[in-house]
Amino acid sequence: MKIVLAPDSFKGSLSSEQVCAAIETGLRRVLPTAEIVHRPMADGGEGTLDAVCAASTDARRKQALVKNAAGHSAESGYALIRHGIYEAAVIEVAQVVGITDPSNMSVPVGARSSYGVGELMRLLIDEGIRHFFVGLGGTCTSDGGAGLLAAFGVKFISSTRKPIEATPDGLATLISVDVTALDTRLAECEITLLSDVNNPLCGAMGATAIFGPQKGVAPGDVSRIDRVIENYAMRLEAALQKSAKDKPGAGAAGGLGYALQLLGAKFASGAETVAQLIALKEACAGADWLITGEGRSDAQTLLGKTPFAAAKIAREFGGKRLKATLLSGGVDPTALAALGALFNGGSFSLAPGPIALDQAIERSAELLANSAEQLARLQHCD
Amino acid sequence: MKIVLAPDSFKGSLSSEQVCAAIETGLRRVLPTAEIVHRPMADGGEGTLDAVCAASTDARRKQALVKNAAGHSAESGYALIRHGIYEAAVIEVAQVVGITDPSNMSVPVGARSSYGVGELMRLLIDEGIRHFFVGLGGTCTSDGGAGLLAAFGVKFISSTRKPIEATPDGLATLISVDVTALDTRLAECEITLLSDVNNPLCGAMGATAIFGPQKGVAPGDVSRIDRVIENYAMRLEAALQKSAKDKPGAGAAGGLGYALQLLGAKFASGAETVAQLIALKEACAGADWLITGEGRSDAQTLLGKTPFAAAKIAREFGGKRLKATLLSGGVDPTALAALGALFNGGSFSLAPGPIALDQAIERSAELLANSAEQLARLQHCD
Repeated sequence: MKIVLAPDSFKGSLSSEQVCAAIETGLRRVLPTAEIVHRPMADGGEGTLDAVCAASTDARRKQALVKNAAGHSAESGYALIRHGIYEAAVIEVAQVVGITDPSNMSVPVGARSSYGVGELMRLLIDEGIRHFFVGLGGTCTSDGGAGLLAAFGVKFISSTRKPIEATPDGLATLISVDVTALDTRLAECEITLLSDVNNPLCGAMGATAIFGPQKGVAPGDVSRIDRVIENYAMRLEAALQKSAKDKPGAGAAGGLGYALQLLGAKFASGAETVAQLIALKEACAGADWLITGEGRSDAQTLLGKTPFAAAKIAREFGGKRLKATLLSGGVDPTALAALGALFNGGSFSLAPGPIALDQAIERSAELLANSAEQLARLQHCD
Repeated sequence: MKIVLAPDSFKGSLSSEQVCAAIETGLRRVLPTAEIVHRPMADGGEGTLDAVCAASTDARRKQALVKNAAGHSAESGYALIRHGIYEAAVIEVAQVVGITDPSNMSVPVGARSSYGVGELMRLLIDEGIRHFFVGLGGTCTSDGGAGLLAAFGVKFISSTRKPIEATPDGLATLISVDVTALDTRLAECEITLLSDVNNPLCGAMGATAIFGPQKGVAPGDVSRIDRVIENYAMRLEAALQKSAKDKPGAGAAGGLGYALQLLGAKFASGAETVAQLIALKEACAGADWLITGEGRSDAQTLLGKTPFAAAKIAREFGGKRLKATLLSGGVDPTALAALGALFNGGSFSLAPGPIALDQAIERSAELLANSAEQLARLQHCD
């Protein structure tokens, strides 16, 4: 029996690798000799780098010293992988400007910059890299990607003709943008953005309005900062003679989705692209059972989330009788009918009965193992 | 595919028949053409009569007018069944002196009597019945079974030579017992007691100490009433030249287990006997899957509880590859390893994720159906 484990992380509880480990612990109690393949998944956000490095023996994990969101130099992780005949870099922007890093959060959102992301890409371009996979989740910045552009040579100028900081605060006095020094090597680059965010850069559904508050934008500052970013985008697009601010995903990662699309980057489904990067298709060949999952599953799961991508691939490329089972922290009962169409091996929760959320999170590894054990009992034939 | 559903009730939530219905609802979403056999189970307590009547086409449900625990005439249900070459009665003492009947509870425990249980049996003996299956759970009485004996002709006498009530209060002045009028037809009877209670009649593990408080015995009254029952038993046993007060189960049903054993009744596992009465063995012939369950499963489940009895029988008499699956309201994680030895089809909870107990109870039918549906997806082979 061949089993592929391809879960997302259980946010706030277990990484996707830890989820795989817990599930295998349970399965092994029943199926000591089964072939169990780990393909921890991610959706382009935090965990993407780990997933790529866990799956591929030729991925090389690296560190680079670049500015974090607060402007301090810090080691940031990335990976180099084989991508067809090319070498490609896998970047997780949260490694540079992540919202869970206290050093980034030590300055207000108005002073945070995505400069380090551009700096990291520029270093890699210096080394000859021209293919990038950029995971956009989990940022603390809301600078419209101005910092990244600054790292590539774009200059932002105030009414007093002084260069200004590429931050929301700095851009408040912006009256012109000088793109004459923009790194020309970007034209040689193929940049794939991993994200499930479809928001535009500005307006009621824009980066500041929707994602600003969770990054620390005060409710009273939302419209002011949104106007600063709108002004920045208008002047930038005039200088570049290109537009991207209304493209889907421009509002991803505080506007990094905007700046990178202006530079020619293309959006791709985070989960599907990660699945390709970890060769999930190939891992599923001849498999009898796929187990995937996430912290909580609902109707959104079927809109391209990680378990959806994993199950689709497994059912298409796995064994003929492959069962795709969802094992999550919780499953919204109202979504079960829809989930059933994809998860032909059922949709399950790790809850052993009535239990509080904090308890379920605290004991999630143990409960996952137990649930996987029970599923194995039911699934396998003596 | 043949599936047998043999759950216990989910106490405080669903009867075992309702559990069967909910599980079938879920299974049918995946397995519209499967043969699904309902064998709602019980353990000898409440629900035993329903289980017997649900399973057997020749069971006849009857009513008799007998005294309830408070001494008021009330209709009490019982059933007549074929038992080999005999006709047998199935009695659930809770139908006569049940703790959930407000009329029984309208008088204090000291004034409650098991008289009606004896009255019902005597009526059936009058009709020629000599075989009884007596389910002992769920009583409100704590009279040592004196009421039942009074109905069969035993007289309890005080120091003033007056007959006294066969209740804890009445027996307080007991100085002698007259058994000369005891119904001699009892010697012709075969009485099987269904219970999982092993307590003796008196003492620290006796009926009053262990079960008295939940019936309304005040903490300060426990030892006084226990002494009353001890005195009653001593004088009764002297009169009958028989002893039963230290037999396992003498403390069942407020001492009905004692009085009936004195009359020659034999104890049997409640769940196993119900399984026999509902012909679970025969229902399992050729079955591929048994689903059983209860409100909450733990290590106690393996000590002869309903799901244990059902699974044992199904695995012995079902199809060769039969899976026995436990689907309960909750499953104690610490019991899973032990449960796994019996439940080769896994042990599951209906919880769809973190959920409060009252929510799980309120939504149990819907959640059971959903869980059964998921199990069916995983279990069945396309």
